Amino acid sequence: MTKPLLLNAFEMLVPVHQSPGLWRHPDSGAHRFAELGYWTDLAKALEDGGFHGIFFADILGQYDVHGGSADAAVRGGVQYPTLDPLLIVSALAAATERLGFGVTASVTYEHPYLLARKFGTLDHLTGGRVGWNIVTSYQESAARNLGLDTQIPHDERYDRAEEFMDVVYKLWEGSVDDGAVVADAAANVFVDPAGVRGIGHDGDVYRVPGPALVGPSPQRTPLLFQAGASARGRAFAGRHAEAVFFAASTPAQARKYTDGLRAELAAAGRAPESVKAFNIATVIVAETDEAAAAKLADYEAHVDTDAALALFAGWTGLDLSGLDQDAPLTYIRSEANQSALAQFTLLDPERTWTLREVAKFVSIGGRGPVIVGSPATVADELERFAEDGGIDGFNLTSAVRPADLLAFARLVSPELRRRGLLAESAPGATFREAVLGKGPRLAADHPGAAARVPVG
Amino acid sequence: MTKPLLLNAFEMLVPVHQSPGLWRHPDSGAHRFAELGYWTDLAKALEDGGFHGIFFADILGQYDVHGGSADAAVRGGVQYPTLDPLLIVSALAAATERLGFGVTASVTYEHPYLLARKFGTLDHLTGGRVGWNIVTSYQESAARNLGLDTQIPHDERYDRAEEFMDVVYKLWEGSVDDGAVVADAAANVFVDPAGVRGIGHDGDVYRVPGPALVGPSPQRTPLLFQAGASARGRAFAGRHAEAVFFAASTPAQARKYTDGLRAELAAAGRAPESVKAFNIATVIVAETDEAAAAKLADYEAHVDTDAALALFAGWTGLDLSGLDQDAPLTYIRSEANQSALAQFTLLDPERTWTLREVAKFVSIGGRGPVIVGSPATVADELERFAEDGGIDGFNLTSAVRPADLLAFARLVSPELRRRGLLAESAPGATFREAVLGKGPRLAADHPGAAARVPVG
Repeated sequence: MTKPLLLNAFEMLVPVHQSPGLWRHPDSGAHRFAELGYWTDLAKALEDGGFHGIFFADILGQYDVHGGSADAAVRGGVQYPTLDPLLIVSALAAATERLGFGVTASVTYEHPYLLARKFGTLDHLTGGRVGWNIVTSYQESAARNLGLDTQIPHDERYDRAEEFMDVVYKLWEGSVDDGAVVADAAANVFVDPAGVRGIGHDGDVYRVPGPALVGPSPQRTPLLFQAGASARGRAFAGRHAEAVFFAASTPAQARKYTDGLRAELAAAGRAPESVKAFNIATVIVAETDEAAAAKLADYEAHVDTDAALALFAGWTGLDLSGLDQDAPLTYIRSEANQSALAQFTLLDPERTWTLREVAKFVSIGGRGPVIVGSPATVADELERFAEDGGIDGFNLTSAVRPADLLAFARLVSPELRRRGLLAESAPGATFREAVLGKGPRLAADHPGAAARVPVG
Repeated sequence: MTKPLLLNAFEMLVPVHQSPGLWRHPDSGAHRFAELGYWTDLAKALEDGGFHGIFFADILGQYDVHGGSADAAVRGGVQYPTLDPLLIVSALAAATERLGFGVTASVTYEHPYLLARKFGTLDHLTGGRVGWNIVTSYQESAARNLGLDTQIPHDERYDRAEEFMDVVYKLWEGSVDDGAVVADAAANVFVDPAGVRGIGHDGDVYRVPGPALVGPSPQRTPLLFQAGASARGRAFAGRHAEAVFFAASTPAQARKYTDGLRAELAAAGRAPESVKAFNIATVIVAETDEAAAAKLADYEAHVDTDAALALFAGWTGLDLSGLDQDAPLTYIRSEANQSALAQFTLLDPERTWTLREVAKFVSIGGRGPVIVGSPATVADELERFAEDGGIDGFNLTSAVRPADLLAFARLVSPELRRRGLLAESAPGATFREAVLGKGPRLAADHPGAAARVPVG
């Protein structure tokens, strides 16, 4: 018996997230990506469909590796323009009651004193429904525009990230006591000064002597997401994450990942079930298997090969521009290529690919499985994947946005509910409670809990 | 005949904004300051009452001058805790149709590349209803927590601010052409790369080679507010502001300020009517003059002297803790005191004050007039003040929050409407159009317009 699944929508405030060219499909609404109503409508539909969260990716630069220019990505609307996802959360919270909001923010480009206030603010305004996807950022173009000559080296970014987490845990967990914000008119005390303390942080990178600007919010620390694929990234996730995203294309690959995750958790002294594992998946559903297969074929005809290769180049650093898109690629097995392609677990180097096939692969499914069929077929496959892969839920992407997510909510969610496979969030539950089944605060064995000040 | 007035609500996402102790009044709802519903309800009421905007102040530190500690400010909830105002705007936009949103953000602690994205995002999500209050920040406690040993000196902050504005104008006005975001499926062009250009900024403080992350929003540059009182601040406002806030206590003082403003505009080569002048005012209204006077007396009984002096100390740098609160103060005329008290135009050094009186002065009215009476009395006084002072509107604060703003909307706005004194915003108008009467883009004689790239 499969345990109930967690459902997360994987989104981004851009015209094209992971499916270049598909915005040209007649069912696409992506041209409305900068309209508030587009997102409030989607959030409501996801909540009705039993989704636990909507998760916003973010980047701070353009994809400019392909052909040495951003032109292909710009023309294709590939993650450009890029709105700031932190700024839409309060509107989506006002439009919903149970949906959680995962937001990407970079420890490289934010200051912990201010980021702590941002998530503290959103945790208050959402009633505890906010999560943070911790990233260290990977784009040269972002680094340049923020005044750095080049990116901070990968491992140094993770060293800084560790100190960043130390600072924000102190601000969220240790700076203001639970009972400090009393608003007691008779006693003439809004906040008890004895319950507020400066964190006195004086580290290699950050110095933050003072207290948090925001008082204790429902979750204090937002639900922590991470998706690092490198060894440093996985160790970081093992210490800090409460939910991880990854992109296995088969249940066996997923099992390998989740086994590794449990080992990292053990190394960090945390309980094996402390972290929920979400695999990326694209679901193309229709009333029947035949109709779904036809939909996929129709989608494939809308792929934009050049724009897809621009996205691929941005992710991997491999510039494949100017090559014949229908000629078989010769795969050169080199260490650099292995590293660049490591995240593309489906991109089998033993197979012969053309660039057009790479583009199709990137554009429909991205880095995860593409599940196509009737509601029953999709539910079967989700159930099998989750059970065999040892995962807790899916991070669902759209090929055609928002149509595929709406179709999932309309067709697949009822089927999952019928099977008892959809874990419904309780109204009023925090994001942590909805995802982890407990909370609203960090677990005692999470390193952030060490920043708490004992009461007594 | 007085021209119609502009109305702005002056708020802050804190328990106590400018009226220490008044949160203890039975009509106060300020204990709900961290609840989204508190703010969406207020925004709707203000819109119904014909307000053109709600304006959010912000600070990034605590008031810790009084007694050398933040305890008095913390106890009184004086601008602490402090939520991030940028993050509530989208929810308020979803709840309203015409209200504008002015948000304070610091050029000292933000990066222009990211701040440009924030306001670009909000300008999209609000349909062009966002404004920016440009501040350079003044708190030691904020500087320390952001890794600086002390504040950047005042004049250097303004030099940096000038370069900051140069960068954001290039990003908002010059980086992406109006027609560039076409979403033309037939042509397979979401964004025309020829209409997107890096700004190539390489200055003393900032280096931003790349293009804006956000495309052209309804206003591009948000409506620009400024409230600088120093000579540098006034010159900065003369160049950049489209609306200014100040705190004159009499129409004569207001006239002096607005005359100076027009001179600064002329010096900057801008039309005299380019900038709207808002004076702070506190309105205490009831059905009758007698009832309003009784309300004021009741309010005065709720002032918290110690918390008010903590706020006063934070503003002026004068620590008056530990003195007898009922003894007459000896005013020592010194250059430092003059400078510190300059913004308190009402605080007449010729008069004898006790600390309790200073506290009352600070807590009800802050730095502007307190207008008390029936709707007709209040409207008379607003009309007289505006006409004699040469101002365009009022930045209305509450003593008891949000009760005084709600009472204004319920009682004074109908009276102003009856007199033809309330300039109603058209549905769908941008904030710039609502305030300046033209737009939606920056005027041609505004320095930001120089960042535009000629089409052709």
